[in-house]
Amino acid sequence: MKILITGGGGFLGSRLARALLARGRLGGEAISKLTLLDAGFPAKPEDLRVEHVQADIADADALEKAAGTDSAAVFHLAAVVSGAAEADFDLGMRVNLEGTRLLLQALRQRGRAPRVVFASSVAAFGGELPEVLDDSTTPRPQSSYGTQKVIGEYLISDFSRKGYIDGRALRLPTIVVRPGRPNAAASSFASGIVREPLNGVPCECPVAPETGIWLLSPRRVIEALIHAYELPPQAWGGDRVVNLPGITATVAEILAALKRVAGAKTAQRVAWKPDARIQAIVKTWPVRFRTERALDLGFEADPDVESVIRDYIAEERIKL
Amino acid sequence: MKILITGGGGFLGSRLARALLARGRLGGEAISKLTLLDAGFPAKPEDLRVEHVQADIADADALEKAAGTDSAAVFHLAAVVSGAAEADFDLGMRVNLEGTRLLLQALRQRGRAPRVVFASSVAAFGGELPEVLDDSTTPRPQSSYGTQKVIGEYLISDFSRKGYIDGRALRLPTIVVRPGRPNAAASSFASGIVREPLNGVPCECPVAPETGIWLLSPRRVIEALIHAYELPPQAWGGDRVVNLPGITATVAEILAALKRVAGAKTAQRVAWKPDARIQAIVKTWPVRFRTERALDLGFEADPDVESVIRDYIAEERIKL
Repeated sequence: MKILITGGGGFLGSRLARALLARGRLGGEAISKLTLLDAGFPAKPEDLRVEHVQADIADADALEKAAGTDSAAVFHLAAVVSGAAEADFDLGMRVNLEGTRLLLQALRQRGRAPRVVFASSVAAFGGELPEVLDDSTTPRPQSSYGTQKVIGEYLISDFSRKGYIDGRALRLPTIVVRPGRPNAAASSFASGIVREPLNGVPCECPVAPETGIWLLSPRRVIEALIHAYELPPQAWGGDRVVNLPGITATVAEILAALKRVAGAKTAQRVAWKPDARIQAIVKTWPVRFRTERALDLGFEADPDVESVIRDYIAEERIKL
Repeated sequence: MKILITGGGGFLGSRLARALLARGRLGGEAISKLTLLDAGFPAKPEDLRVEHVQADIADADALEKAAGTDSAAVFHLAAVVSGAAEADFDLGMRVNLEGTRLLLQALRQRGRAPRVVFASSVAAFGGELPEVLDDSTTPRPQSSYGTQKVIGEYLISDFSRKGYIDGRALRLPTIVVRPGRPNAAASSFASGIVREPLNGVPCECPVAPETGIWLLSPRRVIEALIHAYELPPQAWGGDRVVNLPGITATVAEILAALKRVAGAKTAQRVAWKPDARIQAIVKTWPVRFRTERALDLGFEADPDVESVIRDYIAEERIKL
């Protein structure tokens, strides 16, 4: 089978690609080809099954020609992150909204109703929220990124209802710990406060210690993307959007866990430097969820913050 | 002040234009110019303040040049109706989604943050619904039209949050009684079963007598559009979408009211001819609402179905 991953050059996309290649199969079928679509790639493909397509997802012609739209499986992860979509409104609209619309139209033209997994976000929610959100909470995003993600969900749902695709949209919690460098996501600090200290690098935290975060590890997110794909259509029924499970932790709790795992000296590399712009975005995000439907569907959260940190240390082969 | 009405050649748009010209003022300001944008117009303008612009709302260049985007007030009513958007997916996506996105982008480019009233629809709701919907019910549209309207709402909200417009989106109930001829809206019958018999014309009803409808008269809809405009921004706050009040009536109740108002002979001009396609769309629409926020904001419903029918008879000068 052929698989397309948009945003395949990014953190989640490349990690998903590695996981799929290691499995060799998806939904019971052997993977023959993996097309990664992205605006750029850090390195050449290392596996003969992998094809890199460098293209702008919001360029309809490029997208149409760029191959991959004959894939039976599509993981649509390409996006401009929250901070960047808020700072550059046109860029976010073009990539996150137009890119999604054009991709779905291109897939529809092929007429084979591929199974499409869409990475939506907890940023769908905002404004005045209940203490604990659940599957009936109405998305009222307070960022352009969140708005564009919600619109993507509605497109995924309608294209699925019409039978043009078999779509599944997952609202991802904040991913902790992201490896690599800080990015323009407003949530970048949530990984930074663990990653930089473990790498021996000082780190400035732009939000207060009591700031709560709804988080999930990269490993669980990749598992969720694959699980979402492998669930049969009847498990999803008419509702193609789900809040993924996660765990709730404050910044203070994350640093306490870091101290327990890696020692006080490491945890002390975090300094407080409040950033009003980041605070303003993050405080509109939800912190606690009851994710009954996702748990019923078999999605799983990490057991606790310590295990999230230990996973990162093991994966990155960090010596304490 | 200058006003732009998209869909200004249509039923609601032309009626809104007449109402505004009769008032002469909007939001305390004298109306100097009324630009009506539409794909076509049934007649030439009869008032010197009125300008007709024939253009495709999904044509960015036409929209940009077509004038009207320097208006301080915009009523965005242009849309492909529900039945047509379901039958021609591309047409609905182009006009209802792309048209709205391009209009908002064009307004944003002008940089004067016009006040924008957007006609959304009760078709935003569908699927498994509570017996009575309220302001917290999550839109899960079961038609492409409903999906495109919900997406329009999210765009209106985000453009407002960013300060690019001062938007207000109204979820209109089914409008009863629409004058003129049947159209491609799945709800067309709801007006037809009153209008055709009153005009002495036989009529076929495609849905069962017990089918419930959430309805509002054209007069109340026009009042709501103007009221939505005239409310100050602080009345809307961060939530720019509202379910309008309406009344609930079954097809049988509407025909009983017609009989009381116009006699048994008139009401008997309706024959039953079930249409599975129409039934399938209409049965996903909500029938009962608690519209607390709209009532708090001063929006009003008709008192009962008889008065809706009497209004129509008076407006159309029908002799019983």
